Amino acid sequence: MQLTSPGPTLGVVGGGQLGRMLGEAAGPLGVEVVALDPTPDPPAAPVVRGTTAAAFDDADALAELAERSDVLTYEIELADPDVLERVGDATGVPVHPAPSTLRLIGDKLRQKRAVADAGLPVPDFRPVASPADVRAAGDALGYPLMLKARRGGYDGRGNAPVETPDDAVEALCAATGADDPADVPDDAAMVEAFLPYERELAVMGVQGDGVRDAFPVTETVHREEILRATVSPARTTPGTRERAREVALSVVAMLEGRGVFGVELFELPPDADPPTRGGDGRVLVNEIAPRPHNSGHWTIEGAHTSQFAQHVRATLGWPLGATRRRSPTALANLLGDVDEPRPAALDGVDAVLGADGASLHWYGKRETRPLRKMGHLSVVPASDTDTPEGDDAAADALLNRARELRDEVSFA
Amino acid sequence: MQLTSPGPTLGVVGGGQLGRMLGEAAGPLGVEVVALDPTPDPPAAPVVRGTTAAAFDDADALAELAERSDVLTYEIELADPDVLERVGDATGVPVHPAPSTLRLIGDKLRQKRAVADAGLPVPDFRPVASPADVRAAGDALGYPLMLKARRGGYDGRGNAPVETPDDAVEALCAATGADDPADVPDDAAMVEAFLPYERELAVMGVQGDGVRDAFPVTETVHREEILRATVSPARTTPGTRERAREVALSVVAMLEGRGVFGVELFELPPDADPPTRGGDGRVLVNEIAPRPHNSGHWTIEGAHTSQFAQHVRATLGWPLGATRRRSPTALANLLGDVDEPRPAALDGVDAVLGADGASLHWYGKRETRPLRKMGHLSVVPASDTDTPEGDDAAADALLNRARELRDEVSFA
Repeated sequence: MQLTSPGPTLGVVGGGQLGRMLGEAAGPLGVEVVALDPTPDPPAAPVVRGTTAAAFDDADALAELAERSDVLTYEIELADPDVLERVGDATGVPVHPAPSTLRLIGDKLRQKRAVADAGLPVPDFRPVASPADVRAAGDALGYPLMLKARRGGYDGRGNAPVETPDDAVEALCAATGADDPADVPDDAAMVEAFLPYERELAVMGVQGDGVRDAFPVTETVHREEILRATVSPARTTPGTRERAREVALSVVAMLEGRGVFGVELFELPPDADPPTRGGDGRVLVNEIAPRPHNSGHWTIEGAHTSQFAQHVRATLGWPLGATRRRSPTALANLLGDVDEPRPAALDGVDAVLGADGASLHWYGKRETRPLRKMGHLSVVPASDTDTPEGDDAAADALLNRARELRDEVSFA
Repeated sequence: MQLTSPGPTLGVVGGGQLGRMLGEAAGPLGVEVVALDPTPDPPAAPVVRGTTAAAFDDADALAELAERSDVLTYEIELADPDVLERVGDATGVPVHPAPSTLRLIGDKLRQKRAVADAGLPVPDFRPVASPADVRAAGDALGYPLMLKARRGGYDGRGNAPVETPDDAVEALCAATGADDPADVPDDAAMVEAFLPYERELAVMGVQGDGVRDAFPVTETVHREEILRATVSPARTTPGTRERAREVALSVVAMLEGRGVFGVELFELPPDADPPTRGGDGRVLVNEIAPRPHNSGHWTIEGAHTSQFAQHVRATLGWPLGATRRRSPTALANLLGDVDEPRPAALDGVDAVLGADGASLHWYGKRETRPLRKMGHLSVVPASDTDTPEGDDAAADALLNRARELRDEVSFA
């Protein structure tokens, strides 16, 4: 294989923090990045070759992006699979992962069905279009339920819990944005059983040119359905880690096209017997992302290859890098803790910059908004030896350190 | 300390591979980079906010760069200290390291004198302006000598060995570019004793805001005066490593301004008694670079903070990062092994990309030239535990691995 100069160009739909970190990872490999984003001067802009301000479904702008690129990819599910498919076909520029994968994952009902059809367990689910549908699902699956918009949700947006039959109307409207439940389209929503999981896990899987691999299992901590912190190794049993890896590799195997995929998982308690579908086991698939994912940011410092470098390699069809962990790693997101939008400014960063083993990532977003992901920090131990998997006390300590450092900073 | 968005902008004189790697390191920290380089579309271009094509001593272009920047720095000794000083004074934008440091280091004679005056040992040296001066130096210091242009040399250019008195004329002309030794200016050249060193070492030192630190000692391997490979830990004794660190910290202490400094050292054999000046000991200062240096590239994968991130932090006056090694690391340069310039293309890169623990860095230079630095590769062990210092067999193996991987690639 030959590397030229300039190297290949990766066209990325989306120029947010994921596009920025893709750009940061592409540089050392000699790969150039051009990004398309509706926001002028998006986070990726200062670290990539160029950005284009255009809507995600702007076919002309995408065609121009393709003309500058050797491969197209996307870092946001808001990318339009139909337009990407047409542009890819018209220009001959490969799109990875395949637009069909984006289309499948972009509809949570189809995503769930595909996972279950592949024999992988998921919380039981069904489509709903009316309060009566929701109540019928409650009768069948029990309460609580989670009601989800099938498309466009992220970070908890588009999700609404249903605790009792009386919540059906409000949840249906909240998740779909409808004023009246009668206005909810037939194909807009689904419910799934809300399972009493013991912990949440995530595995970044990767599909390269004829090869699949997965990064070590991460434990994820959410609050209000937004990822707050992660730690790897996950504080669970070797058997669960092995099963999580198997499930993630099976998920990746059912998806078309190359790239990195985030597989979010629920680990159920040993004695659980909740309504599930698709297969047996205590490790259930929650959601899939067809791109690098927040639960994999720890790999930048924590693994031999970062998920971003891996996505660059995979989408270009290059050999994959080693997914092994370099050291235990904890991560805390820097979420906008403000009541309303204001110019971005973070106080107290010297505490993070000066902390041994800590790394600060600041995404360069202009405006702090409530719970917006503005950056993250990671922590590896001062000692450089890997902690044996199963040393939960060490993982606890590392996670606490990440949280302490996060608490040292505040948004101005 | 507060971080805003966009973060501070670092103006870099020079946009070669060092500027590129500075840009790659600045991104995660939220720092933007703008670079000035005479080459249009230099290596740094695809990974920074912007580049300006201008001569290093173009005062107007530098003033414009300063207007866009919070701090100015440089990644090449060809930067002009006088112009930088004037621009810094006129615009109020700090220049780090100080222009006085660039001026001192840019003149090898003044550099050597300053090191010796600080009580640090260097090979004995003296200015020369004629073949008679060279022969007088040979009588006093013995042969061989190394004749050096005082300014503008790098990667062995500007250096010429003097084996016998008969070499004086040719060496003087070769080092200074004069056709006739009578044309050599009085202040253009120097000679120093060429010492039979046991190995070469290097330490990246750093001067922050009121604080100094140094990365672990590296062993460097040169051929034809060009760095070929490095390995850290260096294959030497704990005492020598400790002394190398002390010497490097003393060198940094004598320099004005903040930033990372490369300190190249000679380690002499135990029984050596060569002509030296400035102080005692077997660890001698060879040359200083007022910037990140090839001997510190291993820190990207091998240390908790890379020399580039450290330079960004230091020049901005931010807290420094931890300089500890994460794992033993070997590095091999990818030097253009071509007879004459041709478009850059590297064959066989899949072997490096697919090698466990290896990282490829491709600088994006458009043209391969004889012995030009086109990229580098680093290798860390497959096992993640640090090798104890003193385990020379492990360092041997790692260095051999880096060389094997380098031999897998070739320039097309």
